[in-house]
Amino acid sequence: MSVPGDFMEAKSDQGEKPDHGLADLPSGPLDLYRKRASFNWKDMVLFMEGEDIMAFKRHVYTTLENDPLFARQPGEDVSLETMRELTFRRVKQLFRYDFLTRDDIMQNPWKTVILNDCLGSYDWSVGAKYFLNKGMFGSTVANSGTQRHNSFVQNTEDMMTFGCFALTELSHGSNTRAMRTTAKYDPSTQEFVIHSPDFEAAKFWVGNLGKTATHAVVYAQLYTPDGACHGLHSFVVQVRDPRTLLAMPGVLVGDMGKKLGQNGLDNGFALFHHVRIPRENLLNKTGDVTPEGRYVTPFKDPNKRFGASLGALSGGRVSISRMAVVNLKLAITVAIRFSATRRQFGPRDTEEIPVLEYQLQQWRLIPYLAAVYALDHFSKSLFMNFVELQIGMMMRDKSDRQAELGREIHALSCSSKPLGSWTAQRGIQECREACGGHGYLAMNRLGDIRNDNDPNCTYEGDNNVLLQQTSNYLLSYTSQHDNVKIESPLESVNFLDDINNILETRFTAATVEECMDSAVPLAAYRWLVCFLLRASDMRLAQERDSGKADFEARNNSQVYYSRSLAIVYIEHTVLQRFHDLTRDEDTPADLRPVLQRLCCLFGLWSLSNHMATLYQGAYISGREPAETVQIAILTLCSLLKDEAVTLVDAIAPPDFILNSPIGKADGELYKNLWSSVMQGNKVLERPSWWKEFCSDKPEVGSLRAKL
Amino acid sequence: MSVPGDFMEAKSDQGEKPDHGLADLPSGPLDLYRKRASFNWKDMVLFMEGEDIMAFKRHVYTTLENDPLFARQPGEDVSLETMRELTFRRVKQLFRYDFLTRDDIMQNPWKTVILNDCLGSYDWSVGAKYFLNKGMFGSTVANSGTQRHNSFVQNTEDMMTFGCFALTELSHGSNTRAMRTTAKYDPSTQEFVIHSPDFEAAKFWVGNLGKTATHAVVYAQLYTPDGACHGLHSFVVQVRDPRTLLAMPGVLVGDMGKKLGQNGLDNGFALFHHVRIPRENLLNKTGDVTPEGRYVTPFKDPNKRFGASLGALSGGRVSISRMAVVNLKLAITVAIRFSATRRQFGPRDTEEIPVLEYQLQQWRLIPYLAAVYALDHFSKSLFMNFVELQIGMMMRDKSDRQAELGREIHALSCSSKPLGSWTAQRGIQECREACGGHGYLAMNRLGDIRNDNDPNCTYEGDNNVLLQQTSNYLLSYTSQHDNVKIESPLESVNFLDDINNILETRFTAATVEECMDSAVPLAAYRWLVCFLLRASDMRLAQERDSGKADFEARNNSQVYYSRSLAIVYIEHTVLQRFHDLTRDEDTPADLRPVLQRLCCLFGLWSLSNHMATLYQGAYISGREPAETVQIAILTLCSLLKDEAVTLVDAIAPPDFILNSPIGKADGELYKNLWSSVMQGNKVLERPSWWKEFCSDKPEVGSLRAKL
Repeated sequence: MSVPGDFMEAKSDQGEKPDHGLADLPSGPLDLYRKRASFNWKDMVLFMEGEDIMAFKRHVYTTLENDPLFARQPGEDVSLETMRELTFRRVKQLFRYDFLTRDDIMQNPWKTVILNDCLGSYDWSVGAKYFLNKGMFGSTVANSGTQRHNSFVQNTEDMMTFGCFALTELSHGSNTRAMRTTAKYDPSTQEFVIHSPDFEAAKFWVGNLGKTATHAVVYAQLYTPDGACHGLHSFVVQVRDPRTLLAMPGVLVGDMGKKLGQNGLDNGFALFHHVRIPRENLLNKTGDVTPEGRYVTPFKDPNKRFGASLGALSGGRVSISRMAVVNLKLAITVAIRFSATRRQFGPRDTEEIPVLEYQLQQWRLIPYLAAVYALDHFSKSLFMNFVELQIGMMMRDKSDRQAELGREIHALSCSSKPLGSWTAQRGIQECREACGGHGYLAMNRLGDIRNDNDPNCTYEGDNNVLLQQTSNYLLSYTSQHDNVKIESPLESVNFLDDINNILETRFTAATVEECMDSAVPLAAYRWLVCFLLRASDMRLAQERDSGKADFEARNNSQVYYSRSLAIVYIEHTVLQRFHDLTRDEDTPADLRPVLQRLCCLFGLWSLSNHMATLYQGAYISGREPAETVQIAILTLCSLLKDEAVTLVDAIAPPDFILNSPIGKADGELYKNLWSSVMQGNKVLERPSWWKEFCSDKPEVGSLRAKL
Repeated sequence: MSVPGDFMEAKSDQGEKPDHGLADLPSGPLDLYRKRASFNWKDMVLFMEGEDIMAFKRHVYTTLENDPLFARQPGEDVSLETMRELTFRRVKQLFRYDFLTRDDIMQNPWKTVILNDCLGSYDWSVGAKYFLNKGMFGSTVANSGTQRHNSFVQNTEDMMTFGCFALTELSHGSNTRAMRTTAKYDPSTQEFVIHSPDFEAAKFWVGNLGKTATHAVVYAQLYTPDGACHGLHSFVVQVRDPRTLLAMPGVLVGDMGKKLGQNGLDNGFALFHHVRIPRENLLNKTGDVTPEGRYVTPFKDPNKRFGASLGALSGGRVSISRMAVVNLKLAITVAIRFSATRRQFGPRDTEEIPVLEYQLQQWRLIPYLAAVYALDHFSKSLFMNFVELQIGMMMRDKSDRQAELGREIHALSCSSKPLGSWTAQRGIQECREACGGHGYLAMNRLGDIRNDNDPNCTYEGDNNVLLQQTSNYLLSYTSQHDNVKIESPLESVNFLDDINNILETRFTAATVEECMDSAVPLAAYRWLVCFLLRASDMRLAQERDSGKADFEARNNSQVYYSRSLAIVYIEHTVLQRFHDLTRDEDTPADLRPVLQRLCCLFGLWSLSNHMATLYQGAYISGREPAETVQIAILTLCSLLKDEAVTLVDAIAPPDFILNSPIGKADGELYKNLWSSVMQGNKVLERPSWWKEFCSDKPEVGSLRAKL
């Protein structure tokens, strides 16, 4: 079934340059810029991905492109019902392709992320529908359940059943502990009775539940017959009959309707009316109920249970951080290729220049390109950290280090999801605007990318709520004794040990030249984290001193303090890791210069949002530093504009996947756009309702009322 | 036909408070906040709108609500074809309602804006389709043509024909002078031959052209038989037969397909193949061709012609500045009402508090509410300035003042469109996120509002390109002689006369108390404009001194300089006008306190984006000023959170128009949302394709390839 498409080519005849299995890109208007690049895009792909992943991606992409079920329909107006059907059928086909077996994943867990990248780049609804069943349902049952739940997992893998994950309710999202669905144990039948007290407790927003799910992991408050509530637990509840897709008795289940994006995915709701499920359907890894109705748990300290699970919950956020980068990759590819081929105005009336030549256009787009490279590396490294954590959990590692790792990954993922999703959301909007009117045409895909990225800001925790988790983690370090060394497993907070010295440091780059080194923003970020940590801690103390309880004191120290602290912390960590990569001797020497420029641009550009704070705390003073940073940013943009096309070549998926006429690799902007418009449905036909115009002319003012 | 609906009520029995014809809002969960407001929302409406406009809006809203053709269909998935049909039929109905006659408009031109506000609040596609025909086609023909074109206008008003405005081409937008469509005069038949040299010169993005337009104002390069090109002129070209809606011979005309928003409007393209039109179809106000083929024009200086027309071109931008405010009004209404009724967490486990009580939520939303009030007032006053300009043009005022007014309005509209559209775009996204998952549900309308607002950033001039127009205007004042007093008709630049003294001023508010006065940000803005004007001028000079030609020198001084200059200039002007309003003795005394707080919040919040520049130029120094401003912003947010619900009551359209279950005036968040979900199409039905799931199960891995 592995038919080599155009994208895959066994050999290149481009002279000496190794092609790493990548076909050359079509020649055309983009050559102008491609020729100017300082590096070979194929080398960059190899460095970023490695042979194995490159081959895997190529395989997935080619498979989708060769399967008519995945064909693109230019200009087609697809109904919600059809979108959901198509998505389901594509997901079903993924079971047949079975791109990743359990063995593949054990060998290289990163491949699950790459598969999601590939599916998402094609269409996020397909990826989401597939992984919500396999991951959110299947893995949750496997991880929170025990042996007795294996059949649920197996049925999911065979698509005998279809799963979903039901936590959020109509009236509760962020405040998970306040969920109101109940699961009362009835020893007489050895069943749990799942019940929604009213419609406000309906499970809501559940992906796959709208049309297809037959089984749900439902979170409910567990009650034993003695009337005691043991808190939120998860249960497998059958919601539909797999033979008919009709709702089970007592379950009111349905579709929430259209969303801003990801409309191939059927989000749904469910209201339970005393629905009885077997006692065994309780996912009992952390707590169980005996047949006679007694609650038992291996955990003595409920807080410890909660703490241990924190890191595990990071999985979703680690994954979303990645999804956001993928979205920004797609959008920036479209916008850079457009900007390199769209010509408008010029120094002389006779000749127009590519809009990428304008400083303003460079400044709007190239920092986002730098952010893609920084966040791509970070999301990969964070995933590897998460894998380490998971292995520890599988090994039942009860060490302090494992617990610390869980807390640190929680802090990182709670801030990297906001940073990633917001950067992507803003960047995609900038790309949309930078492509002018053509960016507003649906077929060019910037709208879908933006709309599909949007929920990344909300699900698995609202961005602003999550940032509070990160700042709480950081603030915990201010109360440590002076003689305890600050050391975290991933070293993201180690420099806090030196807080007093760091707070004495000042901006020293005197020239633009000196400023064009990522060590400069890196040092500034260290100072920023320290400064805002102190300031947030003081602010919190002030609030407490003024008599506020902890709840209010924390809420009142978010804006300008703890929230900013969490943001600079994650920006620092992302920058630090990218900085290290660009200095690493294992990084190919011919790629290092361009990566170093990207890194410095990302650092300075991110830093430029915090200039006021740098002045406020006297890290900088006078007119020069801000100007130096600004000139450095513009200089880097200008140096990178000739690399930009090649930099997007290295991150762009094939044209079929990108699916944007103005973003195609051949750079034939207008030909591609024009022919895609022409391929639309009934483009040149008069409307079916033409008689509405041609006859029955309105009598002007016939319905005009006297006021 | 004026049937009074619920919204309209002749009398209130609420004791002494006058109701100004406004019905009371339904009692419910929002009462909590409504009771806390310092003012009566009906008084605010009366102050902002006046009796006449209030009655007119009520009439339009009630008419739409009572007409089944305008009925809302909750949860309906409408196809593109149907959306366009519905929009057309609604527009046709507007001809029958004829809400505004020519006399009405002459009496009160503001009513055209209000009608567009009302239609747009209902659905922008309807408003756009209606006004593109009447305004962009009809008015352009009337204003650029002469007596001989009257029939075109008349046919448009009777809907015998349908018009559109065709300027932009596939490969040219911003650079209007570079349009490539040609109009060659053939004296042998006394016709112009309209021709598109290739598909890149196809007219593109033309609203109404996709399906319905029969006539277009087409911009083309005019050639006389001697081969001379006289530049861009406009022509009326028939593109479809009004009896059949089929394309005219030689015209390839069609639909561009789906856009990110405004999909009820049919944007289209047209390619002309030697299409012959009568000589008389040239819109000949500023230039004509004699029957024998000689070009004649009343203007000797082409630059003067261009200058005189600048102000007139501002109309579109003035109107867009307004449309953006209307969008932000809709979104902030939804988000504030949601935030006042959505409860999540609380100081105690037993009781949850409205999310509007959180400082962070206040800080995310309330500044945008302040921006609505500031921009609402500004857009109104700018429109009045524009009316003054138009009257001058109608009176053939050739005075210097009239020319200066044109230039100033050009500068204001070229910056108020960017400020308005960006503020709205960011604000709507913030509202979407602030409503969490429910904000992502299409029926709550935040997606449509955002997507419909998005093109405001692009059409009638890309925001960034326009800002350059404004800064060019401002930079012209640096070259004036010292002894010439700077005075502009609208006084927006008068303070530049005092630039040297202003640059010596410093931030003086020592306490939060002192800072909570809009005079504080106003003074800072005066300094900012002066500072950035000097800095931009210097930067431009540096670029020129380094040997750059004007084109490049200007391009290289946009980022951080001229672009920022244009932004602070318009922010200053908006703030100044709002500030004056809040101090005006004609402003009711009981409304002044809340308006003053909104004004100060808008000023400080806008200013907080420029803190780094204030430090850079030493307007502020040390740690305190930035902190003082921050605390003042948070304090104002906190003071205004109890007014917020009443402030949105005063700007919200009726529920039917707002069309957002989570934003309804009764505040019954969950009941409204749940019942709207339930009213959706086939919500509880299994999908039509259920057998796809239930039979033909996939054989896992059957299509798996060996890599």
